[in-house]
Amino acid sequence: MYRIIDGKATAATVREEIAAEVNKIKEQGGKIPHLAAILVGHDGASETYVAGKEKACSAVGFYSTVIRYEDTITEHELLEKVAEINKDPEIDGLIVQLPLPQHINEQKVIEAIRPAKDVDGFHPVNVGRMVIGLPAYISATPAGILELIERYRIPTEGKHCVVIGRSNIVGKPMSILLSRKSYPGNCTVTVCHSRTQHLAEITRSADIIVAALGKAKFLTAGMVKDGAVVIDVGITRVKSDKTKSGWKLLGDVDFEQVAPKCTYITPVPGGVGPMTIVSLLKNTLLAARREIYPS
Amino acid sequence: MYRIIDGKATAATVREEIAAEVNKIKEQGGKIPHLAAILVGHDGASETYVAGKEKACSAVGFYSTVIRYEDTITEHELLEKVAEINKDPEIDGLIVQLPLPQHINEQKVIEAIRPAKDVDGFHPVNVGRMVIGLPAYISATPAGILELIERYRIPTEGKHCVVIGRSNIVGKPMSILLSRKSYPGNCTVTVCHSRTQHLAEITRSADIIVAALGKAKFLTAGMVKDGAVVIDVGITRVKSDKTKSGWKLLGDVDFEQVAPKCTYITPVPGGVGPMTIVSLLKNTLLAARREIYPS
Repeated sequence: MYRIIDGKATAATVREEIAAEVNKIKEQGGKIPHLAAILVGHDGASETYVAGKEKACSAVGFYSTVIRYEDTITEHELLEKVAEINKDPEIDGLIVQLPLPQHINEQKVIEAIRPAKDVDGFHPVNVGRMVIGLPAYISATPAGILELIERYRIPTEGKHCVVIGRSNIVGKPMSILLSRKSYPGNCTVTVCHSRTQHLAEITRSADIIVAALGKAKFLTAGMVKDGAVVIDVGITRVKSDKTKSGWKLLGDVDFEQVAPKCTYITPVPGGVGPMTIVSLLKNTLLAARREIYPS
Repeated sequence: MYRIIDGKATAATVREEIAAEVNKIKEQGGKIPHLAAILVGHDGASETYVAGKEKACSAVGFYSTVIRYEDTITEHELLEKVAEINKDPEIDGLIVQLPLPQHINEQKVIEAIRPAKDVDGFHPVNVGRMVIGLPAYISATPAGILELIERYRIPTEGKHCVVIGRSNIVGKPMSILLSRKSYPGNCTVTVCHSRTQHLAEITRSADIIVAALGKAKFLTAGMVKDGAVVIDVGITRVKSDKTKSGWKLLGDVDFEQVAPKCTYITPVPGGVGPMTIVSLLKNTLLAARREIYPS
């Protein structure tokens, strides 16, 4: 019988823990964590994400500030704002909601954020420190997956973990993090991608599969061995006449077929997704406490 | 019949190419690449490495400077010297020979080097940029291995590459570099280490094996499939009554047993080793040309 890894419930637990921490900080007269988000333009998905982050901050007692710009803002103006926030002792963490308009170099903006405030963990300094094994902000999705593995006490040492996808946001960091000498970690990790041959054979040898390629229902039962742990990172929005909204979300895993073979599996929605915002909150708490960058 | 990947000959070729570049730069009145090395104390191996780097610079027409300190130097003094070199427009690349004395924080020194001059590629910014896929200095051993793969036109796309070892200097960067969307790259990469189970089974499925664990003659014939490419990164010095020096170098691969099964194999010595210094020279050339960090 498989067990569902309940990301929604776990995220709620983590939020409660963070809220309790904030209460302690308040009692002790400490610095209340403060997250700033820069939102450029009016992209619907970006608006939704930023609103979700604001709401999550408020739910745990963090301060949050959203700085909005029209998509006519110049790169120079945006970089100046980032520089200003870098120096502002009141703001602990800064995220710039992506994507940015075409005329702005996203990488330049990401690299302008002070690593100590880069709670998204996208700055090369944080990526590099994570790889080297130094304290670093780990980006939200990989951090959320590690948290789920840990909370469900899923054994990882010596296990063969197959990561499908080599993105900067999920595949690459997951491969590094799961092969680290720690728990969760100490996995033998294989990274697969569009050029991989004999994929099904490789995934069938996996004790843990992290599916992060972004193709709905890609991972089928024939690709999974009995007793595997399956982490589904994919989110594809497809039309549906069975939901009120007319849309439904599908993961990279054919859940109904695959789940019966698993020991643990994350659903979509309600698996990895809800963990990403709490990972951001945890990073913001670390930032307020100066735990990653003490000085 | 297997083919030996001749690192010594390849390194000589690359040095000639670099020397030709330097001649062109001279003709055009450009900036002659200049590498500075800081050497603290009198460790025998460190002295040898630094002397080798100096000699290599001189052989290709680079300028080089070795800055020597007794091992009584304070961390503060060392950091001040690094800061001074960071600002010196004459010096393009700076390496600090490791290990440093116990009372000096190595990581702090590495992070003090301006990423644009960090030709060893150890700074988190260079590690992070490499992982993200941005232009970066790639550290000497991984860069040397890529160069050998490329010069021998060894196919990598879709191949299963097994990296044994998860060190910051070899295993981790090799796993990232060989899974990149490029050539050499596009491999399905598995990272194995001390906690890996069924290692022989995994290595037997490999088209390419990178052995970087540091155990003499660890990889035996039974662990390698017919037609594999084997890259041996290990160097272990053992006593020998058959050499004048009384020592010989052994790789991580049992060469005599394994070679007959391979299509390509690197020997030790004379394989990966000679490529590391030329990788450093290539990075220094990139630094002099401001190719990685234009501003």
